[in-house]
Amino acid sequence: MKEPRSTPAADLRAVFEWPVRIYYEDTDLGGVVYYANYLRYLERARSEWLRAMGISQTRLLSEQRVLFAVTSVSIRYLSPARFEDVLIVTSELIRLKPASMTFSQRIRRDTADGELLCQAEVRAACLDADSMRPRGMPKGLFREFN
Amino acid sequence: MKEPRSTPAADLRAVFEWPVRIYYEDTDLGGVVYYANYLRYLERARSEWLRAMGISQTRLLSEQRVLFAVTSVSIRYLSPARFEDVLIVTSELIRLKPASMTFSQRIRRDTADGELLCQAEVRAACLDADSMRPRGMPKGLFREFN
Amino acid sequence: MKEPRSTPAADLRAVFEWPVRIYYEDTDLGGVVYYANYLRYLERARSEWLRAMGISQTRLLSEQRVLFAVTSVSIRYLSPARFEDVLIVTSELIRLKPASMTFSQRIRRDTADGELLCQAEVRAACLDADSMRPRGMPKGLFREFN
Amino acid sequence: MKEPRSTPAADLRAVFEWPVRIYYEDTDLGGVVYYANYLRYLERARSEWLRAMGISQTRLLSEQRVLFAVTSVSIRYLSPARFEDVLIVTSELIRLKPASMTFSQRIRRDTADGELLCQAEVRAACLDADSMRPRGMPKGLFREFN
Repeated sequence: MKEPRSTPAADLRAVFEWPVRIYYEDTDLGGVVYYANYLRYLERARSEWLRAMGISQTRLLSEQRVLFAVTSVSIRYLSPARFEDVLIVTSELIRLKPASMTFSQRIRRDTADGELLCQAEVRAACLDADSMRPRGMPKGLFREFN
Repeated sequence: MKEPRSTPAADLRAVFEWPVRIYYEDTDLGGVVYYANYLRYLERARSEWLRAMGISQTRLLSEQRVLFAVTSVSIRYLSPARFEDVLIVTSELIRLKPASMTFSQRIRRDTADGELLCQAEVRAACLDADSMRPRGMPKGLFREFN
Repeated sequence: MKEPRSTPAADLRAVFEWPVRIYYEDTDLGGVVYYANYLRYLERARSEWLRAMGISQTRLLSEQRVLFAVTSVSIRYLSPARFEDVLIVTSELIRLKPASMTFSQRIRRDTADGELLCQAEVRAACLDADSMRPRGMPKGLFREFN
Repeated sequence: MKEPRSTPAADLRAVFEWPVRIYYEDTDLGGVVYYANYLRYLERARSEWLRAMGISQTRLLSEQRVLFAVTSVSIRYLSPARFEDVLIVTSELIRLKPASMTFSQRIRRDTADGELLCQAEVRAACLDADSMRPRGMPKGLFREFN
């Protein structure tokens, strides 16, 4: 079997979309969404992308003692989301390595003009759940992504 | 050895106080603290009370596979906390049973008049961390509280 | 016009249901949902109930300077929710007064047996958004509920 | 008066430090701090830095209708923080412009070796609180930083 190696984005898969409704809990006294909360929405979209591919993080953790941890985020906030908005959060796997994935993610307002609110790049590494140290993805999982 | 049994509050220990500063993250678009967040402050005060008694929840979990989970909260919100306020959160153990503790907790604004913001009663049960089922507290721990 | 007055529950309306998916952000190191977060889900269900009735909290705030603030919560935690669970959060208006509403709310796991996880009673008061003091609901709004 | 202009970091001021204790609320089922929560700690340190300089964000908002909103974050997660850890969060103003500030921030574990957990660069822009659009800082405030 060929060694797994880094692969260019476009081969991997389409852009995944996930809607998020904004509630009281999401806002701050500025009347808009608190800046850290957008990272929650980015993660929801990545989790739902995994689920859409039939991958259960609960099973990965309990059966293979593997989890993914974010190792870097670069995010630009372009325009604020407000209470009662619906957002569309996208997730696109742009780089796959044996022990990490990099995603390009966007958050738009779910309106006719689809105003772009945030733009982010997020890298997640595969960790051994017991040692919390990096490890290669289980082979079956890596093949699934590839 | 006598059976452990429920014990009246006053014998147990004094009212513990813990200060909490309010940041952007704590507020919502109403300009005041989001109602669920007060439960965080109540927990911080209970955690610091344990720490003040020399009890490490991390060690309880890793060495004895024991954790405490809240089984009920009754809270009244009397006046809102605002951005940049300092709050004083109190915690008083009012009932100790072999497998649970009940706390009376208050949150005041740290000002001359000490306006009362919240009043709560919180019950926490001792759980086995693996099964997440109720169990009696480890004997050493129970004696410590008693 | 007759004075508005407290009204028994059953007349008011049916039980409203709202699904909530559990993500990483919701859990704590006990491996289950952090106790304060259930109050977020309760609020999401109440917000969606308002939306389902055609009431926009954003408009209430901007046009009438009115918002609802929770004045008391009584909640029992019966069984923990876990990562990747779907929960069904219910909301039922059980008491309507000119300046407040009381809800009975439940959270169940969305499985065949629908295990009951939380049971809560939540009271919310109508506030003037500028003074943050209690006031009667706008008449149109009160009639809508009645 | 000379036009305000971008200024190199070292002139501005020393590295500010702020301690943060990790509670249950901060962790996730991986047993470590949830990745979005570090952004809260970064903000607490920036808020405390302002307070240490005698600047009240509450007064900026109420008297001058001005607030700061984060426009970009770039953060690397090097090692996880755990329950009961104390972290030292640093904040250093590295770039000051008429309408924005850029901070270099670090999070270390408060232990003898002071392990570096996160490294971040955060840019915050001055906004008009009513329009939520960028504006120059009030002159007095800008001079204070300079």
